[in-house]
Amino acid sequence: MNVGVIGLGLIGGSMARDLRAAGVASRVMGVDLSPTHAERALELGLVDVVMDLEEAAGTADVLLVCIPVNAIQSLLPRIMDLPGNAVVIDTGSTKSLICRSVREHPARERFVAAHPIAGTENSGPDAAISGLFAGKVNIICEPERSGKKAMEVARLVFDTLKMKTTFMDPDEHDKHVAYVSHLSHVSSFLLGQTVLDIEKDEKNIFTLAGSGFASTVRLAKSSPDMWAPIFEQNAGFLTRALEEYIAHLKRFHQCLVNRETAQMHEILSRANEIRRVLNGIELNQQKNNSQLTDIKTEHKL
Amino acid sequence: MNVGVIGLGLIGGSMARDLRAAGVASRVMGVDLSPTHAERALELGLVDVVMDLEEAAGTADVLLVCIPVNAIQSLLPRIMDLPGNAVVIDTGSTKSLICRSVREHPARERFVAAHPIAGTENSGPDAAISGLFAGKVNIICEPERSGKKAMEVARLVFDTLKMKTTFMDPDEHDKHVAYVSHLSHVSSFLLGQTVLDIEKDEKNIFTLAGSGFASTVRLAKSSPDMWAPIFEQNAGFLTRALEEYIAHLKRFHQCLVNRETAQMHEILSRANEIRRVLNGIELNQQKNNSQLTDIKTEHKL
Repeated sequence: MNVGVIGLGLIGGSMARDLRAAGVASRVMGVDLSPTHAERALELGLVDVVMDLEEAAGTADVLLVCIPVNAIQSLLPRIMDLPGNAVVIDTGSTKSLICRSVREHPARERFVAAHPIAGTENSGPDAAISGLFAGKVNIICEPERSGKKAMEVARLVFDTLKMKTTFMDPDEHDKHVAYVSHLSHVSSFLLGQTVLDIEKDEKNIFTLAGSGFASTVRLAKSSPDMWAPIFEQNAGFLTRALEEYIAHLKRFHQCLVNRETAQMHEILSRANEIRRVLNGIELNQQKNNSQLTDIKTEHKL
Repeated sequence: MNVGVIGLGLIGGSMARDLRAAGVASRVMGVDLSPTHAERALELGLVDVVMDLEEAAGTADVLLVCIPVNAIQSLLPRIMDLPGNAVVIDTGSTKSLICRSVREHPARERFVAAHPIAGTENSGPDAAISGLFAGKVNIICEPERSGKKAMEVARLVFDTLKMKTTFMDPDEHDKHVAYVSHLSHVSSFLLGQTVLDIEKDEKNIFTLAGSGFASTVRLAKSSPDMWAPIFEQNAGFLTRALEEYIAHLKRFHQCLVNRETAQMHEILSRANEIRRVLNGIELNQQKNNSQLTDIKTEHKL
């Protein structure tokens, strides 16, 4: 299959690696606005050739759109306008605005709206790694608007990446990821900022930071180019999530001011419930890893 | 050396393991209010024998006090009152109130106020692991109030655990850990709580949570028995840290409401600076691990 990858960063580069290794991509054509990234992707062997978008669209069997969500939203209609028969799959972390941008497009059936939930805090072609997606969840939105062929190609791509695909409504998707993913990133970015603001002498961070600090602020290393547009596109749900988080923090602050230890203990004990959920996630991922040969993609809409 | 461990959980149990393995502890006597924990510590071979506090104090060369910080504060003067010549070392995550509780005690020179900065989100005797402390930082406060013999024993203990010991004023310690450790825990506990509150149907957390969520809420699994007292004892500094964190979150919320993407991008880029600090911490820990044979304990007061 002739695979065009638009955006040669962590996601696009990692997809290229695995699709090529599995023999699914016979040729990988890379498209990137940054000549430096494009050149680096060639050097790393992520892509066979670099070309412009029009050229790639004309010859690709599938185009993977792996660029920041605001760029997906604005570029996607133009990609669908281009001559060619490629199935177009986006990988954006928000889905409502992206789905809406091509909902009435005459070629809509060639498009699949996806969100493969995988990543690290690193970015750019050098961050691309093998096996990034294995055992993780992939969300597809509005599968009923994608044609049969497009869904078959998408299934081949995500099965090859060893992902477990499930279906969600775009708004439902955006609402839940606001809490379960985007809010985590906001809390981590701002925690990093707060500590940097106070500890002007970074020696104290070096001395006193344990593994807990590193784990909590890890996401603050993530790319602003990727995350600022995600936060903006999901601002509706994310502002509400953030308001609730701030309300919880304020209640806790009040307990602290009043030295209400019993109540603090109760809050922490309830938060402890997350252990059960996290353990469930780990179990689930182990199960996925062992059942990858039998991936079931149920249609839940 | 006859070692008494008061509190047979993650910290006490892990210290017992390493001191015994290194041959520094010829006999480990365990003290715990919970008969279940005491029995489990015996079963796991963490301790040779379980006894009451008075008995342990009478025969120990060193008593390691590894209980929640509120219990240290109230019990420490009583421990120092007991007949015996044991050096007493506490391991509490706050230091001001603990130091104050025995500052004028006639046997103060037998006491060393320590904070070995290591841990996991697990607790109890089963959480005790070998090598928990290796390469990590240990803080000692008010070393000038500890006698020569006490400091020698403390040095033997923390060198055996392969820790890098440094010195700080108790208030300075508490102020910095409020930002670099305690605030991380608060943000994680309340993030867990916020997500649990909203996602009544936990299926959505299972489906959508990536590794970022797991990393950010890991600390929410920590023991409320340990952390509620830490937060209370450090309430003075922690309320300020929390206020600053909430202020940062509110500013970000405002950017989100106003769709000020450029400003959000700037905030995220500044938070990105934490990458340099975290990389420095990792480098530092690697350096510590390779230089463990030559531990320098500089007196910085």
